[in-house]
Amino acid sequence: MTAWRRYLAEGIGTAALLCAVVGSGVMAENLAAGNMAVALLANTLATVFALYVLIEALGPVSGAHFNPAVSLVMAYRRDLPRNQVVFYMLAQLTGAAMGVWLAHAMFDLEVFQYASKVRSGYGQCLAEAVATAGLLFVILRAPVGKASAMVACYIGAAYWFTASTSFANPAAVFGRMMSNTFAGISPWDAPAFMLAELVGASVGVLLDSWLGSDKDAMH
Amino acid sequence: MTAWRRYLAEGIGTAALLCAVVGSGVMAENLAAGNMAVALLANTLATVFALYVLIEALGPVSGAHFNPAVSLVMAYRRDLPRNQVVFYMLAQLTGAAMGVWLAHAMFDLEVFQYASKVRSGYGQCLAEAVATAGLLFVILRAPVGKASAMVACYIGAAYWFTASTSFANPAAVFGRMMSNTFAGISPWDAPAFMLAELVGASVGVLLDSWLGSDKDAMH
Amino acid sequence: MTAWRRYLAEGIGTAALLCAVVGSGVMAENLAAGNMAVALLANTLATVFALYVLIEALGPVSGAHFNPAVSLVMAYRRDLPRNQVVFYMLAQLTGAAMGVWLAHAMFDLEVFQYASKVRSGYGQCLAEAVATAGLLFVILRAPVGKASAMVACYIGAAYWFTASTSFANPAAVFGRMMSNTFAGISPWDAPAFMLAELVGASVGVLLDSWLGSDKDAMH
Amino acid sequence: MTAWRRYLAEGIGTAALLCAVVGSGVMAENLAAGNMAVALLANTLATVFALYVLIEALGPVSGAHFNPAVSLVMAYRRDLPRNQVVFYMLAQLTGAAMGVWLAHAMFDLEVFQYASKVRSGYGQCLAEAVATAGLLFVILRAPVGKASAMVACYIGAAYWFTASTSFANPAAVFGRMMSNTFAGISPWDAPAFMLAELVGASVGVLLDSWLGSDKDAMH
Repeated sequence: MTAWRRYLAEGIGTAALLCAVVGSGVMAENLAAGNMAVALLANTLATVFALYVLIEALGPVSGAHFNPAVSLVMAYRRDLPRNQVVFYMLAQLTGAAMGVWLAHAMFDLEVFQYASKVRSGYGQCLAEAVATAGLLFVILRAPVGKASAMVACYIGAAYWFTASTSFANPAAVFGRMMSNTFAGISPWDAPAFMLAELVGASVGVLLDSWLGSDKDAMH
Repeated sequence: MTAWRRYLAEGIGTAALLCAVVGSGVMAENLAAGNMAVALLANTLATVFALYVLIEALGPVSGAHFNPAVSLVMAYRRDLPRNQVVFYMLAQLTGAAMGVWLAHAMFDLEVFQYASKVRSGYGQCLAEAVATAGLLFVILRAPVGKASAMVACYIGAAYWFTASTSFANPAAVFGRMMSNTFAGISPWDAPAFMLAELVGASVGVLLDSWLGSDKDAMH
Repeated sequence: MTAWRRYLAEGIGTAALLCAVVGSGVMAENLAAGNMAVALLANTLATVFALYVLIEALGPVSGAHFNPAVSLVMAYRRDLPRNQVVFYMLAQLTGAAMGVWLAHAMFDLEVFQYASKVRSGYGQCLAEAVATAGLLFVILRAPVGKASAMVACYIGAAYWFTASTSFANPAAVFGRMMSNTFAGISPWDAPAFMLAELVGASVGVLLDSWLGSDKDAMH
Repeated sequence: MTAWRRYLAEGIGTAALLCAVVGSGVMAENLAAGNMAVALLANTLATVFALYVLIEALGPVSGAHFNPAVSLVMAYRRDLPRNQVVFYMLAQLTGAAMGVWLAHAMFDLEVFQYASKVRSGYGQCLAEAVATAGLLFVILRAPVGKASAMVACYIGAAYWFTASTSFANPAAVFGRMMSNTFAGISPWDAPAFMLAELVGASVGVLLDSWLGSDKDAMH
């Protein structure tokens, strides 16, 4: 096995994830006739289902990060070879863009666009930090074989309990910048989201280490 | 064990699947009072639940394809004896029609009908190719014992992120041609859907082989 | 272990199941503001969740039938001692009534009532036969350890794809006769439902045996 | 391992649970445009997903009670060292408050508030007793490794089949007293809820012991 297989897996997985997030957002908005709670429910279910499937399918190849914040943490913990982390992130960002464009093409929208949806303010940034802290905490504490279901369910909950609907992923922010749809985020608001996510990821790592390693656990 | 048991399993499974798809579509449209997002949510849940159950119940007998595109790929990979593939497909098409008719009979609709719902255009065909590519990719990369949950969840996501609501199955197209309801598709649009699905299935096989075999995986 | 533990488990389980079905129906109708698709979605989720939990919790004690049609089939197959089948059914019917009354008490409704909701016609009876045939087929073909998830998911699908919303259980019909709410059924329509369910159960058993025993399966 | 790790886990878990319950309630109410069934559906899904993830992530450390009624029962059964039960409850109550405040901060609401939502009457108290009896029954009878899914699904059902939407947790009542939102409960109504929950927990323990221990079970 060579490392490019892993980069390819990250690219395919992130593309599929963003295609699912953006595509289901477009479909939901088209059908929901203005009831945004129903639209977000549909968007949630599609994302949860897609995440579970993608982590199961690609986890054995690349670890199924699909998320630069996760890859950075894994490299910091030496669970990912440090010389691969840049390529992981490039694959994720490239995949994110391609997934969004594919969703646009399927829905007969202009392929290349930029979002005008404002997502800003203290609460939104706090929400992104909380969402990403929770994501890393969940990943780091998932029992063996449970990460796929746990990450999918976590994101499904976080779509609703965080004020920002939980992007929790700089590659998702990058892709969603390029979609002027339900799931979009204005490029002007993207840097603050990404920064909050990286801060949140650090908090998640701290919280996990504060709680102690598995070897200390009671059973 | 003789081969007819397997054909019977494919027939029963495809009938049950189409009955679930079409029946839940009728029920959802009847109750949703015009909110099509709620109708598609109900249709999605019913399909996801039915797929999981049918793959678990019939997988041990026939492999639970319920889909000519899947059977063709399995025969190509020699995971299905090549002299059985025609009978698999006949069982699937027969089952699809019978499942649709059963749904009509339960809902006091005319049993034999043809759909007038137009589903055409570049985006719809691209969507069917994407949906089927993803389906084959998921099937081919599913870890042992996970295919039932993964296929069910994949279709649940694809109902929303593809512009065509993801038929992804020529037998489903065939059955849904014969139902002038929520889930229907005009016979004039069916050939393009089927062709796109076969192209998509090939892309899924290519993508899977491009990513390498399990034996090369890192763990 | 004495047999009364098993009857108690059947009584508790059927009471809890009917309480969940009727209670969630009342809550859903109260909140749904006339959107019956949303009400049935909520009713479906509550039923699916309750069934999964009850089968896991009580299966080890009694087999978790909660359904006279299932107990009759199990006695016929000698999977249930034949001298217990009457007590199983008595426990189920008693439990069903008590569960419905408990739901009424929680929602400040008159405890003792009779349903006026008409559920009749050829399509409804066909639907009950189909629903119960499917239920028995799923139970009889469930791989070891999967019955809880499979039965729960099956009923979740059948709420939508059968025209009758899938009672599929004479004890459920009995209990729901006594509730003039979302989930009710007029006592005049109950006998036909019960008869259709018993016919359907037989069809499910036939279909399962027609498909052959597990020992004949290919893997 | 020292005991403080376990208290920390209870605090984090209860904070996260209440943040999920209150936060998703705010989001759902904001988006649902008055359709309270859709809002409760979203609140239900977020809670189910969060519970599953938190029990999996923190169960190995503290047992994942997040609930004083559960901790009292576990101490009574000597499954929790009796000298830890007060600290468990303090961690849960502290966590509950902090989780609610975090949700308010994310949604740009005043952090410190008190609920004015009236939840009173005989039916509501009966519902809380039923909800908590069921919760303890489910926990005590869950097969090894199934508690996370079973508790999550149980609460998902109980949100709908109990008239009170199933708080079933004195720490949840405590936290939700401090939130004048969808999930709130007036402090005047809180004591009756808590008392009903403790009575219900006792009933659940009795019901479980009445049904006999696992060693007596048939298989």
